[in-house]
Amino acid sequence: MSRLVTRRELINLLGATGGTAAVLQAGSVLGLLPATASAAALDLLALGSTNKKVAILGGGISGLTVAYELNKRGYDCTVLEASHRCGGRIFTVRHGDLIDEIGNRQYCEFDDDPHMYFNAGAARIPTSHRSLLAYCKELGVELEVFIGENNNAFLQDDALASGKPLRVNDYKTNMRGFLSEMLAKSMSEQQMDEPFTETEAENLLSVIRSFGDLSEGDLYQGSSRNGYASGGYLTHGVQKDMLAFRDLLQSSMGRIALSAYEGDYGPCLLQPVGGMDKIIAGFLSKIGGQVKYRAIVAGIQVRNDGVEIAYDQGGARHKLQADYCFNCIPTHLAVGLDHNFPIDYIKAMKYVRRGEAYKAAFQAKERFWEKEGIYGGITRMNNSSREIWYPPHGIHKDKGVVLAAYDFGGGSYFTKMVQQERVETHLQDGEKIHSNYRDMVEKPITIAWHRMNHMLGCAARWRQSFSGWTHEEEQMYNILQAPAGGRHYVIGDQMSMNSAWMESAILSAHWAMQDLDVRVRSEIAK
Amino acid sequence: MSRLVTRRELINLLGATGGTAAVLQAGSVLGLLPATASAAALDLLALGSTNKKVAILGGGISGLTVAYELNKRGYDCTVLEASHRCGGRIFTVRHGDLIDEIGNRQYCEFDDDPHMYFNAGAARIPTSHRSLLAYCKELGVELEVFIGENNNAFLQDDALASGKPLRVNDYKTNMRGFLSEMLAKSMSEQQMDEPFTETEAENLLSVIRSFGDLSEGDLYQGSSRNGYASGGYLTHGVQKDMLAFRDLLQSSMGRIALSAYEGDYGPCLLQPVGGMDKIIAGFLSKIGGQVKYRAIVAGIQVRNDGVEIAYDQGGARHKLQADYCFNCIPTHLAVGLDHNFPIDYIKAMKYVRRGEAYKAAFQAKERFWEKEGIYGGITRMNNSSREIWYPPHGIHKDKGVVLAAYDFGGGSYFTKMVQQERVETHLQDGEKIHSNYRDMVEKPITIAWHRMNHMLGCAARWRQSFSGWTHEEEQMYNILQAPAGGRHYVIGDQMSMNSAWMESAILSAHWAMQDLDVRVRSEIAK
Repeated sequence: MSRLVTRRELINLLGATGGTAAVLQAGSVLGLLPATASAAALDLLALGSTNKKVAILGGGISGLTVAYELNKRGYDCTVLEASHRCGGRIFTVRHGDLIDEIGNRQYCEFDDDPHMYFNAGAARIPTSHRSLLAYCKELGVELEVFIGENNNAFLQDDALASGKPLRVNDYKTNMRGFLSEMLAKSMSEQQMDEPFTETEAENLLSVIRSFGDLSEGDLYQGSSRNGYASGGYLTHGVQKDMLAFRDLLQSSMGRIALSAYEGDYGPCLLQPVGGMDKIIAGFLSKIGGQVKYRAIVAGIQVRNDGVEIAYDQGGARHKLQADYCFNCIPTHLAVGLDHNFPIDYIKAMKYVRRGEAYKAAFQAKERFWEKEGIYGGITRMNNSSREIWYPPHGIHKDKGVVLAAYDFGGGSYFTKMVQQERVETHLQDGEKIHSNYRDMVEKPITIAWHRMNHMLGCAARWRQSFSGWTHEEEQMYNILQAPAGGRHYVIGDQMSMNSAWMESAILSAHWAMQDLDVRVRSEIAK
Repeated sequence: MSRLVTRRELINLLGATGGTAAVLQAGSVLGLLPATASAAALDLLALGSTNKKVAILGGGISGLTVAYELNKRGYDCTVLEASHRCGGRIFTVRHGDLIDEIGNRQYCEFDDDPHMYFNAGAARIPTSHRSLLAYCKELGVELEVFIGENNNAFLQDDALASGKPLRVNDYKTNMRGFLSEMLAKSMSEQQMDEPFTETEAENLLSVIRSFGDLSEGDLYQGSSRNGYASGGYLTHGVQKDMLAFRDLLQSSMGRIALSAYEGDYGPCLLQPVGGMDKIIAGFLSKIGGQVKYRAIVAGIQVRNDGVEIAYDQGGARHKLQADYCFNCIPTHLAVGLDHNFPIDYIKAMKYVRRGEAYKAAFQAKERFWEKEGIYGGITRMNNSSREIWYPPHGIHKDKGVVLAAYDFGGGSYFTKMVQQERVETHLQDGEKIHSNYRDMVEKPITIAWHRMNHMLGCAARWRQSFSGWTHEEEQMYNILQAPAGGRHYVIGDQMSMNSAWMESAILSAHWAMQDLDVRVRSEIAK
């Protein structure tokens, strides 16, 4: 008979972190937000009568942050945006909008209604993203709650329940029950006496029992946490049948179900009312006049006394002379422009890879998910479409927009398909969840970020492995973060060790402006 | 050396529910909502030229549901409401509103602004409450997402971390980590080989590891799920110190932290935009003309041919003759009126006890919680104020209303205090969480539901014990559910086995109307 947890092991576990109160005295976890999570006020010198010209390449959120902040301090800023719109991967698709995917241009045919939009890029704001939230407040961007995890949404895996979708709640309640039964069983009375004190043992067992909703004898025998099979209001609730532990273990989706929306993504998340690009609109309400659209950068020459930008607009080549340049063009594109960057800088620019991400959305003729008791949240599928997102806004209206696929793992699975094939795949995947899916949805749009005009990639990818940054990766990052010739800054979420977030893009802009500020102050002091 | 989980026990656990696919074939848990969770359309006879008078005693949501539905079918309905407002325990307090607590009348001094309200009674709508949601849709009540669980909110217990508040996320991440380390350790390799198949063992371990975010060797060594101590965007995130397992076990709050908002309360929840009483306003927009306010019922006489109601209004005694009566006056008050109910009915009315619940709220001069990264959700304290709720609406506005206490356990702890003592208690409790609490909050209101005029109680309490209904309790419930003399129906959440919910009150009204409908159809057929 094998023994499982030794007393020695339990004692070690209890001693983890080396002890007791000492750890709890450390301030960092105790009710204080980490320092970086607060929106530091930017302490930048206002120029007064000094004139400084700034060229900003790309109207993504990092570029607009620079334009907004430096404009406040008296800098003369010009934003060159290659496309017809600002925002980059902050892209809310509405009626009539162009999705400029190369090889698959689409115009959105959703109904023209304020709640009928699709956040094709950035789509949720963790409340720990303090700098972004501070801008939302400052720019008057109205926010509302976004729903990520929803216990009423589904898990679907062909290996699970013969492919039938399970409510997240049914999966979680049962899995938690079985796990905690195992855990409770592993605590024999003898074991519990020692090394635990009576209070510790009591509290531990109460955590375990309540975690899994165990019945008497510490058995999991089903729970009402995943609702009742019937009744429960006027009459007694009839408990749902338990799922079988063995069946739940056939699928690897438990990994997601039991840890989704823990941490940064966890409750709660926010979104702007009316679409993520309301943030961009907020910035543009302040500095919109400084943006040149369809201005495609062709060259960047860093001189001792400034930066010269060549760009094409309206069929002609133009020049823009500036003292400083902030560049949020993806480095894998910027490195191919006519530039005179230093060798190691070029090497670093080339080093950054780009993620491939794909999303699709449908207009729903009816909000069919609400009829199934789903208000917002995410259904997860073990297939190529991977996720269905239900909108948390527009509740009970006639129609809504659902995300039909989110292939964040990258890869060109869907871009090898024509549009009809993409859509058919999402219909077939969605039908496994909602049998009436095909009838309910229309007017598909798809977007492969690695084929979007002027971008050709999603979030920057610095790391080869998830296990951490290598020395080389850090070296390259540091080279690229420092301004070329003291005048050209690469910004954007690409200049973050945690790319893909708006917060990271903003903080990269803050870092660069703070570096600029030191240089300008010293120059003026001369 | 003690052994903990035997192979025999694991095999039993795997065999729980007697097996495999059989259980998963049962439809009830598989993506189908239980039957009761869908809003059944009421199939009630429209009267045509027949005239039927209905007296509705009390303008709570069950009474208004009856008035709304029977009015649609041609019944002549009159609602007698004792107070100056409908809604009962659906009570949104705003600028100037009277809180008619006997012995502690208060007028609310919150700023007069649409988002400055307090839902003093019903305050959240689970998405499984389909009948209520169907009325919201039908009556055009706009809904938005409500935040219950928020990982950024706090847990506070004097026994935990020397009384310092812990972020829910810090507590949960660490506790989950330690639990899953224990669980992983209890699975020796030998054990995992048998009874698990390779896939089962793999999936089980992946669930356990990802549940606790275990490091290599299945050790919990901290996690980034509760955020970083610093960095994490431009620079590497510096992991927070682990909490000590032993310290976490000093408090019984883990029971709450690890199971809060699982189940019906779990993600996601909804609320009407602008206050819970928008639901009442929705009903009143249809049948408001049929409500008599400040009409205090004095007597109920059930006759063979109808029901006679005596009520006081405007200083005079009035009579109302009706064919049927629907009564949502709390039974412990109704039983003291001048009535002629049968003995067993009276006994059942007396049998129902009433919960005592207490809430308090402050106007906050600033939304200080948002500066701490909290957007909505609940802080839980192991003290008499118990909970602080942060509003999920009005994000980033200047002010907001916070719930300062929610003593749902009942008891008269706070009602033995004068208003200043109540408020001082909440200030002291809140200061343990937010050091600037006392400076930030003003204009307190408190409400003890068991002292509210015309109610003198919160939700009905049928059960003596949490372990289930006794035979006597069920007997009493059944007696009270059947109409006295075939003409007098007790309705409200008091006629539910799951009281305190709006859904239960509505379903009690539906049950009574369906019973009425059978009687009316048979009468007309004669």
